[in-house]
Amino acid sequence: MPLPPDHLVTLSAILQTGSFEGAAQALGLTQSAISQRLKSLETRVGAQLVHRTTPCTATPAGQRLAAHADQIALLEARLREDLTGLAPAPQTRLRLAVNADSLATWLPQALASLPDHLFDLVIDDQDVSHDRLLRGEVLGALTTRASPLPGCDVIALGLLRYQAVASPDFIARHFADGITPGRLGVAPMLQFNSHDQLQHRWITQATGVTLSPPCHRLPSSEGFVTAARLGMGWGMAPEALLSDDLARGTLHLLRADCPLDTPLYWQWSRLLGTALAPVTRALRRGARLSLRMPQDLTKSGETL
Amino acid sequence: MPLPPDHLVTLSAILQTGSFEGAAQALGLTQSAISQRLKSLETRVGAQLVHRTTPCTATPAGQRLAAHADQIALLEARLREDLTGLAPAPQTRLRLAVNADSLATWLPQALASLPDHLFDLVIDDQDVSHDRLLRGEVLGALTTRASPLPGCDVIALGLLRYQAVASPDFIARHFADGITPGRLGVAPMLQFNSHDQLQHRWITQATGVTLSPPCHRLPSSEGFVTAARLGMGWGMAPEALLSDDLARGTLHLLRADCPLDTPLYWQWSRLLGTALAPVTRALRRGARLSLRMPQDLTKSGETL
Repeated sequence: MPLPPDHLVTLSAILQTGSFEGAAQALGLTQSAISQRLKSLETRVGAQLVHRTTPCTATPAGQRLAAHADQIALLEARLREDLTGLAPAPQTRLRLAVNADSLATWLPQALASLPDHLFDLVIDDQDVSHDRLLRGEVLGALTTRASPLPGCDVIALGLLRYQAVASPDFIARHFADGITPGRLGVAPMLQFNSHDQLQHRWITQATGVTLSPPCHRLPSSEGFVTAARLGMGWGMAPEALLSDDLARGTLHLLRADCPLDTPLYWQWSRLLGTALAPVTRALRRGARLSLRMPQDLTKSGETL
Repeated sequence: MPLPPDHLVTLSAILQTGSFEGAAQALGLTQSAISQRLKSLETRVGAQLVHRTTPCTATPAGQRLAAHADQIALLEARLREDLTGLAPAPQTRLRLAVNADSLATWLPQALASLPDHLFDLVIDDQDVSHDRLLRGEVLGALTTRASPLPGCDVIALGLLRYQAVASPDFIARHFADGITPGRLGVAPMLQFNSHDQLQHRWITQATGVTLSPPCHRLPSSEGFVTAARLGMGWGMAPEALLSDDLARGTLHLLRADCPLDTPLYWQWSRLLGTALAPVTRALRRGARLSLRMPQDLTKSGETL
């Protein structure tokens, strides 16, 4: 039995505006009507959907239901588009899981090419973002995972190239006698968060050993580069974020011959494939301009 | 009954290296010793502490226990420092909740002034980061909350000034006849995430009305500015991130006379006050260089 659409719209409005008052204003209803609709939806689903805090936030069940509402809104907007030839209503917001380093480099330009769309971006490590896709919390995800998740389609976008960098002072202080396992084991390292294994992979690639150096955790792509520039540690950053610092000499490569390439895939819910087609096209176009395109990536998923 | 310290160290090592193998290597033990210690700790606590995934991640109970282990390590490092006059061991990592806009502007410089420390930064909205402090997941938090949380001390750091900006094209397209409530109600807006009410507050401050415009959600300080520059929407950004764009004309202020100032406080666990004193001093110094300092902020918490 489908859930009443006006009740789903009410839930979305509460979460979007952060309050019952805001939802009432947005929908032209009284606050008591908003409250009644939400309660009726919660009874129907058998779970609390909204934490009555300031601002109101979604419970896990509320989050799942709001994502469902967004998906229905998207399908309806595309239907309207197909039936009338009009662009989808700008109210349709697409929730996508993206990795921080794409958002810091090539992604905004790709998304800005779709002025008729609204995006709700959720930042996740590329290695874990597919969990959100599996749980239905997002419509699509930029991920390192090449094989399609159940119910999803996938294309290879390209390679994001990382370089190991540090400030000249840091290199003089810690690596005066070369980038050796002994020095890498004690020099402070930067890590995006506990999931980030790029630095560890680079150490293994560059020296052949496995190490657990002391490290800072700093979950911001640009903050990472700033921290490296300030000499807090060495770390791996996307080459697109490094060009100015490398040209100015405020950052140096640890090794000129040792980049680390990370493949990036776009996975999306197959059910929404047609509705998401403009996004898929925009991502493919943006990636072609900014990512590296090796031959072997084209083997997985569709061809580039 | 205190938990065996070597078992806590084992838990930390598993979570830091992401694997039993890495922990074994880091501690010079066999993998089976690591596995036994963890199991014994889990039996003792009566809860699973680590998800056996690749990489290993902490359960909520594991997260809480790892934070406890970090706190003990910090206290011991300070004890060693006091007893021997030596700097704390660089292995002591301080977990702090910070807001993304501080990390994107003044914070790295402040933290880089403490080369003997390792930081584990967790990004939270300043409005919600105190929850992590209350739960004991972090030792201190940058927050908008002036009154101290239970068991915490607080000082006012200063004001982070925000300005409403958009690209010249966006302004010409949407605000040709001025920044009116009618136009603000339909022009795409940028929002950091669903907790971010800065834009809504600015609309009310600038026009006196409450609106829920269509909006993108884009949880990155620098990505926000990039998206504004690309004409995806208008939004509020810290003035320190805007100077280049404003000088170059790639972004314009929506209103020159309508900045929005957000107070920033530093709250920390009182129990760890002495241990955190160098951090508190560094934050105060960094804030004094970069944040705005009004008279009325000094009323709450300690004086600046």
